[in-house]
Formats: sequence, structure tokens, C-alpha cells
Amino acid sequence: MNSTFVVTGCSGFIGSNVVDRLLRQGHRVTGIDNFSTGQRRFLDGALKHPQFRLIEGDLLDEEGLKEWFRGADCVIHLAANADVRFGTDHPRKDLEQNTIATYNVLEAMRANGIKRIAFSSTGSVYGEAAVIPTPEHAPFPIQTSLYAASKLAGEGLIAAYCESFGFQSWIFRFVSILGERYTHGHVFDFYKQLRDDPTQLRVLGNGKQRKSYLYIQDCIDAILLAMDKAGDKVNVFNLGVDGYVEVNDSIGWISEALGVKPRLDYTGGDRGWIGDNPFIFLDTTRIRALGWKPKLSIRDGVVKTVEFLKANEWVLEARE
Amino acid sequence: MNSTFVVTGCSGFIGSNVVDRLLRQGHRVTGIDNFSTGQRRFLDGALKHPQFRLIEGDLLDEEGLKEWFRGADCVIHLAANADVRFGTDHPRKDLEQNTIATYNVLEAMRANGIKRIAFSSTGSVYGEAAVIPTPEHAPFPIQTSLYAASKLAGEGLIAAYCESFGFQSWIFRFVSILGERYTHGHVFDFYKQLRDDPTQLRVLGNGKQRKSYLYIQDCIDAILLAMDKAGDKVNVFNLGVDGYVEVNDSIGWISEALGVKPRLDYTGGDRGWIGDNPFIFLDTTRIRALGWKPKLSIRDGVVKTVEFLKANEWVLEARE
Repeated sequence: MNSTFVVTGCSGFIGSNVVDRLLRQGHRVTGIDNFSTGQRRFLDGALKHPQFRLIEGDLLDEEGLKEWFRGADCVIHLAANADVRFGTDHPRKDLEQNTIATYNVLEAMRANGIKRIAFSSTGSVYGEAAVIPTPEHAPFPIQTSLYAASKLAGEGLIAAYCESFGFQSWIFRFVSILGERYTHGHVFDFYKQLRDDPTQLRVLGNGKQRKSYLYIQDCIDAILLAMDKAGDKVNVFNLGVDGYVEVNDSIGWISEALGVKPRLDYTGGDRGWIGDNPFIFLDTTRIRALGWKPKLSIRDGVVKTVEFLKANEWVLEARE
Repeated sequence: MNSTFVVTGCSGFIGSNVVDRLLRQGHRVTGIDNFSTGQRRFLDGALKHPQFRLIEGDLLDEEGLKEWFRGADCVIHLAANADVRFGTDHPRKDLEQNTIATYNVLEAMRANGIKRIAFSSTGSVYGEAAVIPTPEHAPFPIQTSLYAASKLAGEGLIAAYCESFGFQSWIFRFVSILGERYTHGHVFDFYKQLRDDPTQLRVLGNGKQRKSYLYIQDCIDAILLAMDKAGDKVNVFNLGVDGYVEVNDSIGWISEALGVKPRLDYTGGDRGWIGDNPFIFLDTTRIRALGWKPKLSIRDGVVKTVEFLKANEWVLEARE
């Protein structure tokens, strides 16, 4: 059955891919974005589609939101300040864009009688996890970054609205996502450096940080499957592949895809930045039990991402 | 060694007792309160003390805060919207008073180079706990009330500031607190009803909700001991007695203390209100390991509270 979705952050990496998928499935979509980091070109296809409506607006505009949400059945709330690394430069941004914006989304839903919400949280909410691979019911963690803290606050608000106002929610704790329309993260940084100077690469930390990743289309498969199959009041799912790589592995694949052999300059230490978690690997048993599994490996995801950047170098400039 | 403390919520139940204790120990105290629920009479003693400075101000006043915090060494952040039961009537209040206010406190600390903060969180952050008695490292919970979600958001912000800016924190997850200057909660509600009509008592839920409590002076002992002895970056402690009672037990002690025998009218169901947790009992092994234990039982705490209300009936009117 076709629905009317609101997608916040619709011109972002994940948002624009979600919009395209929903339109392909025959749904109506209202996309909202303030274009602070989103790219209008990612909506080139959607904007030609009669079932797509774009709102250029900000989630801090409470009254606007209430109007824009009118008539929708379901919200996929992806808009966020995803600038994890520089959180300490502007702590207010995470509070506003991730926590207060989520509150405003929930209030706009309440004003319009919309009860279903999917939310992009992060595996970073586990902090420096005591259990790895980390399941959703891991020991109550201590937050280690402003970004994760602001996302956890969003999770808490959403769960409380489910209990208080009869909402239903699907909360996804992502590893880093890779693939088409990827616009920030280590592959982006390394690609950019190597384009400017293929002979050397500056690597934050010691290159031994272990991280997990997921390909964008696998991520969207999981989101839509969970929303279809998981019927609890609050449904929390880790999303990631069943494994991890070292930053050094990733550097190897990127270099190979670009045909370069840079000298590696490590900044040192086991963390890339304050709050960087040196080992992220999520237990995805719960989402796999619904029949999902990722189609692409981390290596495939990295290579796809490099190919996307090669074919879309405008992204590098747009995000400067 | 004597310090200069900032105490937010200084005219509240817990805040005013903390202020008195700190002054007695020889510290300087700057108390901040907007008197939205606090009582000026609770500061009668403190206001006569040369080491006490009262600021009548709001934690949403960011610029004010930065000025008021000047010269302090340490913050005890107790100000909050503690109106748990009616959270669904005004969701914005929890967001503003508990989450955004905490962010403002942290920013005012940063602006003044203050690095130590104690925070009153709540045992409600465990939601409907999977493990009882519930330890600090219980499985990652799902939030069930706007109040708890807003407190958890505060915890996350504080922990992230510790990691990001070299702060040190003591986060206390309280059960309900009882004793002198108690101004809201079930003893208050029952006392007030029985004063108006000693023959009947309306009880939310079925009276079988199991809850734990702690006497205010035991609570303050624990806070100050933990701040003295616990040296991690982020120190999280449950505070409560080692046991629980049924609401019905409490009704018995209150009735006895008042010499009344009311007919009990239960509203029914196993919860008093939306988001009410029918069983709260915290594992306090961690704080006990520092040498703390409560001096008063729950029964003693309830009786002390009734005695306080008897001797201070003005509180009933002030909070109407």
C-alpha cells in the first residue's frame, strides 16, 4: 500500500537515496532540507517525479514543520549535524540540529496525528563499548562525543513519545555508511588528499582504528524491512556488516582503486580525534533475524565510494 | 579545603538542603534559582550566612549564567522540571528545563574554566528495567517518560563534555527522595488529600507499585562522599536504600502518623500515570563500596516527611 512519507535531510547522502527508493516503490514523498550540507543535485531525479515535493526549510522552524508535515503517514528523520569530528568546535550545533530538531519533528507529528517515525541514530551511542560485537542491549554506555550524546537524546525523546503519545518508532544505530552520494568521512578525506598529492597521505591516529561500514543500498533495505516487519512500540536495530576493517585496509583499497602508492604520515595515537572510538563493530543479529543481510562487503563499499567520487568530483568542491 | 560551589535549583527540596550542608562545612555557595517551584523560605538560614550569594535567575539565560558562575570551582546542578507525572501536558518543559538548561550550565562552566559537575539524574532512566535490582551497567534501556529522556540527555551531554573538554562529573541516579522540605510526590499528595478529607484517599493505580526511596540527608552524604572519593572522568552512581515498598505500605505509615483510617479508592491498573514505572529498585553496590550506607529506612523517611508537612503546612498552599 502506498503512503505519504516525510523525509528530513532529503538532499543528504542517505536522505536522497531513501527518497529515490520510496518514489520508485510508488510512495508520495515530502522532502525537507535546509541545504546546509545537502546537495540539490542529489535530488535531480526526484525533482522530476510528480510524487515528490521539496520543502526548503529548517527543522528549527516549529510552525513551518507543522504545516509541511500535513497529510503524511510516516516520517523518516535523517536530518542531522553529522559533523562528528568537529563537534567540540561548536557544541550548540549538535544540540540544535540533532536534539531540538528531533523534538520539533515529534511535535509536528503530534500536531498532525502522524504516529510512525524512523530515526537514524548511530553506533557511537555505545561509546567505548564493553562488549564487542556490541548488541542493542549492551551495558548502559557512557557517552564519549557530543554527536553521539545528541543522537542518544533524540532516541530518548522518540521512545518517550511512543510511550506518552502512542507513537511507533524504528531507531537505527548505524555504522558509517558508504556508497553513491557519500560526502563526508575517511574515504572522502583520503580521496581528496590523494587527488591533490598522490605521493603522500596524512592519516589521523595510527591507522589501526577498527571500524565497520555498510553500503547505502543495504542500509536502506534494512530500514524499510524493519519498518515493515518489526511491530514493537520502540524498535531498535544495529545496522552494519558482520565484520570490521582497519583504517589501513581501507587505505590500501582506496590507493589500489586510484592506482597510487602514497607515503603514509600518521598523526599518531590510537584515536583520530577527541571522542573517536578506536573499535566499532556492532552485533546485527536482531536485524538479520528479520531476513536481512548486506549484499556488499566493506571492501566493495569502499570501492563503490571511490568510483562515485571519481565520477562526481564536483562533490569535493561543493563540500569544501 | 574550602571551595566555591554553584548550586542550581538552590531553593528546591534537595538544593536548599545541599546549600545548608555546604555552608555548614565552610564552603562558599552561589545559589541560582528561578523560583518557579523553589521556596524562598527554604533559604531563610542560608540567606543569613555571609558565604551565601543568591542569584534569582533562569538557566535559560545563557549570558547571565556565564557571569553568575565566575569564580566557582565546582557545580552541583540540581535545577530541573521534576514534574514527572504531567510531562505529557507540556513536553517542551522537560526539553528546556532539563536538557537545554544542562547544556547552558556546561557552557557557562567552559566559559569560566570550571571542570567539576555533580548532576541529579534519575533512576527512571532505566525505563522498565530488565534487571532488578538495577545496576548502573544494566542493559541499555528504552526510555518511557519525557522526564527520564530529558535527564538521560543531560547525562549524555555531561559525559561528552568530560571527554571533549576535560571535565569531571558525578552523575546520580536517584530513587524518590524523602524528608525535610519535600514538596512533591505521593506523600505530599496523600497528606493533602487526607487533610482535606481524612475518610477517603484516591490512589493512582492499584497501590501495588513497588518503589524505592531515600532520605534527603543520606542522599547528600552520598553525593558529597562520591565527589570526594570517586576519581573517574565520569562517575555514575545509583542512590537509594537497599529495598523497596509498595505504595500500600506507604499509605499505612502515613495514615498511622496522621491517626486516620481512610477508605482507599484505587483508580486501577498497575501504573499511576503514563510512563509510571511499576517497579523501581536500584542496585547500590557501587556507592556502598565507597563506604556509604543510608541511616534511615524508607519507613523512617516517610514518617519524617509527614512530620515535616505537619509542621510546615504552608508548603501545601505554596505548591497549589
